[in-house]
Amino acid sequence: MASTTQQPTALERATTAGPVRPTPATTRLSPVPPGAARISAGWWADRQAANGERAIPEGRRHLEEWGNLDNLRIAAGTAGGEVRGPVFADSDVYKWLEAAAWEHGRSPSEQLLADIREVSALVAAAQEEDGYLDSVVAERGSAVEPGPGDPTGSRERYSHLPWSHEHYCAGHLFQAAVAVTRATGERQLLDVAVRLADHLVETFGDGAGQVRDVDGHPVVEMALVELARETGDGRYLELARWFVEARGRGLVAAHGHGPTYFSDRVPVREATTVEGHAVRAVYLAAGAADVAVETGDGELLEALRTQFAHMLATKTYVTGGLGSRWDGEAFGDPHELPSDRAYAETCAAIGGVQWAWRMLLATGDAVYADALERMLFNGFAAGVSLSGEQYFYVNSLHVRSGAHADHERSPAGGRQTWFGCACCPPNVMRTLSSLDGYLATTDARGVQLHQYAPGRVEVDLPGGRVRLDVETRYPWAGTVRVRVEEAPSGTTLALRVPAWAEGASLRRDGHSEDVGPGTYAEARDVREGDLVELELPVRPRWTRPDPRVDDARGCVALERGPLVYAVEECDLPDGVLVDDLVVSEDELPTDAGTDEDLGGAVRVRVRGRRRAPGPEDAVEVLAVPYPTWANRGPGAMRVWLPTT
Amino acid sequence: MASTTQQPTALERATTAGPVRPTPATTRLSPVPPGAARISAGWWADRQAANGERAIPEGRRHLEEWGNLDNLRIAAGTAGGEVRGPVFADSDVYKWLEAAAWEHGRSPSEQLLADIREVSALVAAAQEEDGYLDSVVAERGSAVEPGPGDPTGSRERYSHLPWSHEHYCAGHLFQAAVAVTRATGERQLLDVAVRLADHLVETFGDGAGQVRDVDGHPVVEMALVELARETGDGRYLELARWFVEARGRGLVAAHGHGPTYFSDRVPVREATTVEGHAVRAVYLAAGAADVAVETGDGELLEALRTQFAHMLATKTYVTGGLGSRWDGEAFGDPHELPSDRAYAETCAAIGGVQWAWRMLLATGDAVYADALERMLFNGFAAGVSLSGEQYFYVNSLHVRSGAHADHERSPAGGRQTWFGCACCPPNVMRTLSSLDGYLATTDARGVQLHQYAPGRVEVDLPGGRVRLDVETRYPWAGTVRVRVEEAPSGTTLALRVPAWAEGASLRRDGHSEDVGPGTYAEARDVREGDLVELELPVRPRWTRPDPRVDDARGCVALERGPLVYAVEECDLPDGVLVDDLVVSEDELPTDAGTDEDLGGAVRVRVRGRRRAPGPEDAVEVLAVPYPTWANRGPGAMRVWLPTT
Repeated sequence: MASTTQQPTALERATTAGPVRPTPATTRLSPVPPGAARISAGWWADRQAANGERAIPEGRRHLEEWGNLDNLRIAAGTAGGEVRGPVFADSDVYKWLEAAAWEHGRSPSEQLLADIREVSALVAAAQEEDGYLDSVVAERGSAVEPGPGDPTGSRERYSHLPWSHEHYCAGHLFQAAVAVTRATGERQLLDVAVRLADHLVETFGDGAGQVRDVDGHPVVEMALVELARETGDGRYLELARWFVEARGRGLVAAHGHGPTYFSDRVPVREATTVEGHAVRAVYLAAGAADVAVETGDGELLEALRTQFAHMLATKTYVTGGLGSRWDGEAFGDPHELPSDRAYAETCAAIGGVQWAWRMLLATGDAVYADALERMLFNGFAAGVSLSGEQYFYVNSLHVRSGAHADHERSPAGGRQTWFGCACCPPNVMRTLSSLDGYLATTDARGVQLHQYAPGRVEVDLPGGRVRLDVETRYPWAGTVRVRVEEAPSGTTLALRVPAWAEGASLRRDGHSEDVGPGTYAEARDVREGDLVELELPVRPRWTRPDPRVDDARGCVALERGPLVYAVEECDLPDGVLVDDLVVSEDELPTDAGTDEDLGGAVRVRVRGRRRAPGPEDAVEVLAVPYPTWANRGPGAMRVWLPTT
Repeated sequence: MASTTQQPTALERATTAGPVRPTPATTRLSPVPPGAARISAGWWADRQAANGERAIPEGRRHLEEWGNLDNLRIAAGTAGGEVRGPVFADSDVYKWLEAAAWEHGRSPSEQLLADIREVSALVAAAQEEDGYLDSVVAERGSAVEPGPGDPTGSRERYSHLPWSHEHYCAGHLFQAAVAVTRATGERQLLDVAVRLADHLVETFGDGAGQVRDVDGHPVVEMALVELARETGDGRYLELARWFVEARGRGLVAAHGHGPTYFSDRVPVREATTVEGHAVRAVYLAAGAADVAVETGDGELLEALRTQFAHMLATKTYVTGGLGSRWDGEAFGDPHELPSDRAYAETCAAIGGVQWAWRMLLATGDAVYADALERMLFNGFAAGVSLSGEQYFYVNSLHVRSGAHADHERSPAGGRQTWFGCACCPPNVMRTLSSLDGYLATTDARGVQLHQYAPGRVEVDLPGGRVRLDVETRYPWAGTVRVRVEEAPSGTTLALRVPAWAEGASLRRDGHSEDVGPGTYAEARDVREGDLVELELPVRPRWTRPDPRVDDARGCVALERGPLVYAVEECDLPDGVLVDDLVVSEDELPTDAGTDEDLGGAVRVRVRGRRRAPGPEDAVEVLAVPYPTWANRGPGAMRVWLPTT
């Protein structure tokens, strides 16, 4: 979509911040302003283009079609009829607004700006006199719990917070308002957000428990912190802190699900793992991380470190997917990671990215950038089609031949254009349109590159401006060339060496040195004209599972660079089922060239054999990157491949 | 509990039939009347004693405590207040009544008879003028669907059949009424049942679809057939036939779950597998089997054969457990059989037994008696504690060390005394109190013994009475001695040789011959004084999984006779977790003596080693029969044991 506005320079746009702007000095690393890091080509640029050109415009149409916008009109009294959709329908509007705002920041468009203004005006009109805003609860009320035999509804505000999602919707509004303000400079939606936030402060703000519940679905915590950062109003941070502290004290118990589901079994600072509903758990943790850094709460931050580490070690799929259970959309027990029934909700991968990003900013620890990359390239990217407008809600690691799609979320049925519960699609949109913000950070010593994509970084450090040009074919190839166009003296350029990159090296001025995986390789005192080249060993490798993951026992996964690979049945010889394939760990797969129909993916040749029934014939198959599976129609697929 | 009534002889009681009495000539085999086959000692006698002495009396107290009986009083207008519990609360009362009736038949007791009369009177009083009976729907209404954002309820009869369970409750009433009539000779409850059945016939009976739905939860089908058998009223059979035929035509779609969940995606006679909610699916199949035999519908029976075979081959746990998903309590795709998240509801094992029994009667095929035995000894028996009054709803095959019980049904939390949704406990009770009926059948040639327990069989054949005395320590030992006390000339005694019993032999008059597993060994023309001895090779054996069952890959299961074994962490050396254990397929486990604290179970010594972390030390553990696990407190457990 061509833009007719005059584009500001990166630095003109970069007067504010991206989705997360910690108060300086509360974190180890600072995010760069929006526009300061730009992806210009390659895998992620293609995803962003599809997102901007198709998904976001389509998204607005879906919000119209599914009633979300009508709900706001009904609440405003400008339309008749009954509100539709789930109780949290407003949140999809807010996520879409956030996506549109960041997209406008990334690629300004009068049309998009007009859309943002129009939809924002619908939101503003639905707000009540005293700031309260929730079209569905106001008009239809919320059920006490989602179970049979409970026909009770109530339109009384905040009377059923475990299920009403009123704070959840407010949180997404705050995030949207911050995005619109930062990306467009316009403050109408921020005014709406501030009025609602003030209303929340008045209603819940004394910390003494005027109401008995916290919201069943976290997100308001990180949103309130960001609103505090944007407005400078400390009451919002204080309210966020109270919501985090109130968690785990049984406030949300006994509402259809137990307290575990709601992250309400154990206080956040005492928890040692993540549990319950995965999206709720990681959203809460991300908000707690925001609270921890803004309040200087080292104990809370340390607890979050422990939880994140335990999640990575025992409750994260090789794809970075989070949440192993359909039932309750929940984290299971440690090492409970079924492939076929992996839930691995797209929203959970997004929440995982948000939490990892906050932990990375807080600590500077490469483990978080590694986790973020794994989640982003696999569990998140698989959630959207290459064309940009079809979505997986659930990201399985195994679909059987002839598997029966008995649910709109079932991966066996392929990606869908929208869902009755449409949390994932606009969540994907806002993540893609704000993705550039995850590439780089700064600190007193210089610039850190955490994720690799061709593009530019232009950012002002205290000593002067840094301009970097990044050239790479990552993730398909492992060479990352960073040309320093400008840098104040003494600037250190730090490049993440992924944990999988055994044998990586850093070259500068013809000198090459080995750099250890899972760390940052540093080029010190870089100057204008310097070329710093990181060489990552991007080639196929087998990954063995933890022996305690039952479903993956006797299997290997194929990885290449940051990507996990999958075998799709459509690539197997006729009559060979994906579950017939057995591979040998001794025979390493090899690159098999680029597939333009799969987003330019490098495919990998896997040689195996066919298990009985039938003779044990040799079988060869070209595996595809996990995020590209199911782009040629739905079908059978495996990530973990049996070796015996 | 001592009985003060004078006990009738077996044959005096055997004037009617057990739970299933097909019209003669519609099936290959005929069940024996209640009391004709009696278990006198051993494993099942102990379970029955605990059931009669503790579970059934406790059950009545639970029905009082949880409001089920009050609901009936409220509907009758003899008590105030609001009805409690799930919409199908009445069905628990009916299952309890059925259990009490069979128990009275098994072991007559004035107290129990008084209880039956009293509870039956509550049921009768709650019935409405025109025969309608459902205390919860009448008083509170039923929600349209069990999902959030649907606060609508309706007290209009049959307006929400997919979720209202009105036919389901009626079905359980019919089964209870048939049981009370057959076991006590009293007909008050049968009159209630007939009035309700007549009302159903009038409301749904023209087959032209006066209402748009069939009940979301089958059971009324087999219950109506049995009521037809008991009363001779063919309209009930016709209604059952119509309910079976109406299935699979999309009547129940789009009510929160898709049609798959409700067994409503494919017509029963066209289905090739079982799918959706496991209990619903097998109850429907059992009812369809009844309809098929009574209407001589060979096509329908053949379809059920195919479905049963596919279930056994691809959707049945080694424990006989059915239903692999917590989400929707459902059968999954073929070979989707997770150990840790196995749902394997106790009720599904019971429904599996009911279906298998009807297929066995219809066909005489040993495969059904084999399946029945596996389900009964493992997936069913694990559902109740040795003490008789604590229940598992869910029968997992793997509980991890430190697993978090986040649900009252979670096996990690151990067995419970009752549940908010209490379908399983009274279902266990009625199964145990009617269990003798599954031991033996008759046909024109003689008597078939399908299940082995010490006891007696006394049954009249056309040519005269057969009296058998069975002596065995089965399942702990493999010798089954059948002494013929009386038999008309030409009687054939057929003894099932289980499919696992490779190397079995039959001895008679000092002559021994090998008999093939998975068949019936026949002793022809048995006469008074004959001793027929079946020798089954009951010893530990390793069972390898289907390679397509991911969760069991690289594992073996320990079996011994009809029992699956489990390793409990409490039996491992200190500090060794159940998930640390690795066994060698090459080393066969050995018997390790009887454990009186575990119901006289023979334990089995398994030698393995401890996997890293830590040195790979040799580890020895005494495995326990699966139905005896979790009788020493909850804890970690595995059925499938890794070999690598």
